[in-house]
Amino acid sequence: MADGPEGGAQEPLVLVSNRGPVQYARTEGEERTAKPGHGGLVTALAGLAGHLDDAVWVCAALGEEDVAVAREHDGAAFEEEGVGLRLRLVELEAEVQHKFYAIVSNPLLWFIQHHLWDLGSTPDITRREIDAFENGYVPVNERFADAVAEEVEARGGRATVMVQDYHFYLVPERVRARCPEVFLHHFVHIPWPAPEAWRVLPPAMRAAVFNGLLGSDVVAFHLRRSARNFVLGCEELLGLEVDLNGLTVAVGERTVAARWYPISVDPDELAATAASPAVADQERRLAGTRREHLVVRVDRADPSKNILRGFRAFDTMLDDHPELAERVSFLALLQPSRGDVPQYVEYLDRVRRLVADINLKHGTGDWQPIQLGLEGDFDEVVAAYKLYDVLLVNPVSDGMNLVAKEGVLVNQRGGVLALSETAGAHEELGAHAVTVHPFDIQQQADALFQALTMDSDERQERLARSAAFVREHDVATWLRNQLDDVAELRDARSGG
Amino acid sequence: MADGPEGGAQEPLVLVSNRGPVQYARTEGEERTAKPGHGGLVTALAGLAGHLDDAVWVCAALGEEDVAVAREHDGAAFEEEGVGLRLRLVELEAEVQHKFYAIVSNPLLWFIQHHLWDLGSTPDITRREIDAFENGYVPVNERFADAVAEEVEARGGRATVMVQDYHFYLVPERVRARCPEVFLHHFVHIPWPAPEAWRVLPPAMRAAVFNGLLGSDVVAFHLRRSARNFVLGCEELLGLEVDLNGLTVAVGERTVAARWYPISVDPDELAATAASPAVADQERRLAGTRREHLVVRVDRADPSKNILRGFRAFDTMLDDHPELAERVSFLALLQPSRGDVPQYVEYLDRVRRLVADINLKHGTGDWQPIQLGLEGDFDEVVAAYKLYDVLLVNPVSDGMNLVAKEGVLVNQRGGVLALSETAGAHEELGAHAVTVHPFDIQQQADALFQALTMDSDERQERLARSAAFVREHDVATWLRNQLDDVAELRDARSGG
Repeated sequence: MADGPEGGAQEPLVLVSNRGPVQYARTEGEERTAKPGHGGLVTALAGLAGHLDDAVWVCAALGEEDVAVAREHDGAAFEEEGVGLRLRLVELEAEVQHKFYAIVSNPLLWFIQHHLWDLGSTPDITRREIDAFENGYVPVNERFADAVAEEVEARGGRATVMVQDYHFYLVPERVRARCPEVFLHHFVHIPWPAPEAWRVLPPAMRAAVFNGLLGSDVVAFHLRRSARNFVLGCEELLGLEVDLNGLTVAVGERTVAARWYPISVDPDELAATAASPAVADQERRLAGTRREHLVVRVDRADPSKNILRGFRAFDTMLDDHPELAERVSFLALLQPSRGDVPQYVEYLDRVRRLVADINLKHGTGDWQPIQLGLEGDFDEVVAAYKLYDVLLVNPVSDGMNLVAKEGVLVNQRGGVLALSETAGAHEELGAHAVTVHPFDIQQQADALFQALTMDSDERQERLARSAAFVREHDVATWLRNQLDDVAELRDARSGG
Repeated sequence: MADGPEGGAQEPLVLVSNRGPVQYARTEGEERTAKPGHGGLVTALAGLAGHLDDAVWVCAALGEEDVAVAREHDGAAFEEEGVGLRLRLVELEAEVQHKFYAIVSNPLLWFIQHHLWDLGSTPDITRREIDAFENGYVPVNERFADAVAEEVEARGGRATVMVQDYHFYLVPERVRARCPEVFLHHFVHIPWPAPEAWRVLPPAMRAAVFNGLLGSDVVAFHLRRSARNFVLGCEELLGLEVDLNGLTVAVGERTVAARWYPISVDPDELAATAASPAVADQERRLAGTRREHLVVRVDRADPSKNILRGFRAFDTMLDDHPELAERVSFLALLQPSRGDVPQYVEYLDRVRRLVADINLKHGTGDWQPIQLGLEGDFDEVVAAYKLYDVLLVNPVSDGMNLVAKEGVLVNQRGGVLALSETAGAHEELGAHAVTVHPFDIQQQADALFQALTMDSDERQERLARSAAFVREHDVATWLRNQLDDVAELRDARSGG
């Protein structure tokens, strides 16, 4: 086979992710609706799949109506006209889904990968966690691997399979066992930590994670340091032979490559949203309530996003600069997340209490320094992107962080990005941002002040450079780079 | 210069550590006493220094009487007859000492290096921490560097300097600046974490730590993985050129080597203590209260030691094996530690409460399953070593853990070592121990039961092999290996 640079797209494609490209809903007595997800990844993959003769997307049936649709098709793939591609919805029993999602994927894996456990006290691995792995994470991964293998087998055993994220670490090994000719690509969208962080998992569990991923031909990350950590872990925890410069792992006769591709967004889709009447409505509303300066943050309500320290830094800035009283407000648009995980419920409680404390301390009769929005309305988010003077993106750690990339594309006020050095996006946008150190409250306060008072020309120039960078390095480029590598590696494999 | 294998000992030697080899005391109206510390490191270094024509030990004046002694000598070095070597006591003001020790060294650095922070919530770097670094850690390191440099200069500028541990990361760079001809060796006794863990420190602070250590010729650790993490950190955080196989770092014209030497204990000293009448008294007392099975743990009361999960595992074992009721007891000898650090006070409180809960749950009229000893009496510790059936050493992570090595040398009952896979000692003793996974409560419970019920022949054989290993790899060997390397590297430097 000698594919061109777009050759990755010539073979049948099987995409796998937990959340699919469309969510079904039905309100009583009404028609079924199919709402496409927003965000670069869904758009890019859906765009790719739409251009192929033969592509199918395997994902979980997450809501009631998703389940209804899955059952109507007996769990088989079907054509979804709305997004123009074939879908296969995998139905999971509620209890299995809970163990898979709300115990193992979150918080256990997520917290390990973002260093959110304090190891002297948490986590405890007990029968509950072992059971959730064995009777939740493993069977869900098996179910998905079976669905993928069926799709591959239906195509004569040859296809490119692209698996997304930390829900499915065990899928590649199982698909490989059934379909040895397949080309397997697994993308991990969250940071891959150093080998020692994986020691939180009992040996059998961490070996399952690594061996599962090593069924792939390529394990991909956003950052080189994640790719290297993966290779280091294969050496230290599994005793495999690795190449620390070439970032490959020898697994029997096969070679697994660790690669990195910084994800991005779709500038055109975002521009279209930004120009919509719905966003204009939100913009008018927000403009009516704003003060002289507006700080914005947009995040899932997740401890890795460092929301508490961001508010403490704002509090410190108000302490240090009383002249800002009544002249600045902080709009925090937080999407409540993982409400079935106690750590997330508790975190959101702490966020609310801290906001109340700070508003009580600094607020006046008609000025509340922090406004908390928990609706998760994307039109409101895009309106806030347009209006910010400072966009605070201060995660503890983050695979990439697309808020930073979306914000700089849409902003219309010469807004300054205050960006954590530990966000993946910092490698690309750090030069044009004000860098914040995520644990240093005082430095974050000083950085917020610096950003708010920055000279107008410098603000405009930084914003223009950031936006230009993101436009040049968009999600289509991200995907094309991966597919080029897939084609090359596939050729090398069939040639060798 | 062409030294023999013991050549490291031919040049003047300057030792540096926070706690010195002797502690001065005076009770009212009595003579001054000089109590030598116990433990392999002090014995080995004191033994080495005692055999040299010219050696001096620089350490902190920690107690009131230490300060009195320091002042009598105007802060200069003096001959300490009791331990047969020269000492130089460095006096620190209480406030500076507090910032240095109880804010920066602990908890900040210690918690980073043992992964004890939950990064979503702790630590906060505020003005307090920055101040403690700038006005505590930095000046104490400068004070020690000046004292070392004076000792080196008094010897014509040539000496071997051996600095101990995490209190003095900034010393080598400063000594190097004043004494370019010196040979500097820094030993880090606690785990060196992956680069990402160091991102908890603001950039200037972590650069100070790495650059400080890079003043050394050799940076030494107990384990290869710590040495590699150090080299990885130099590359990732400082952008230096490194050799990941040879484990060296290029710093300008110089090459810094990362090495590893697993520390050990002094078998003869320990045997002498074990044979003492004081230990025999303690042994009789403990023997009188013991049940059929005795589990022992010996630790500083530190979250890295994983004391809570050890008790939870014991609780789980009693749940799972009611037949053990009234037949087993758990003697936990914990040395209260760092009482001026809130995290340590809180941790000890949690330990006490958990012990009370478990004793209330399982205890009977004349049986308390867990006995907590907080006296820190070493004779009692050695007596417990002799008597244990199982020695639980389950740290979250640990540079080495000498309790494991002491225990197997002294035990007289075919006791089984239950050893965490994340303790440094596991690389050497793991093959003869029952391995425990520090976060897995159920597995620890099962491992305790397995150890308690192990066949007698197997117990004896494992114990004999462990003890033989430690006798062959004692602290004298540890020190000799380092000095051989020092001699070799010094020769290479002066030859090249």
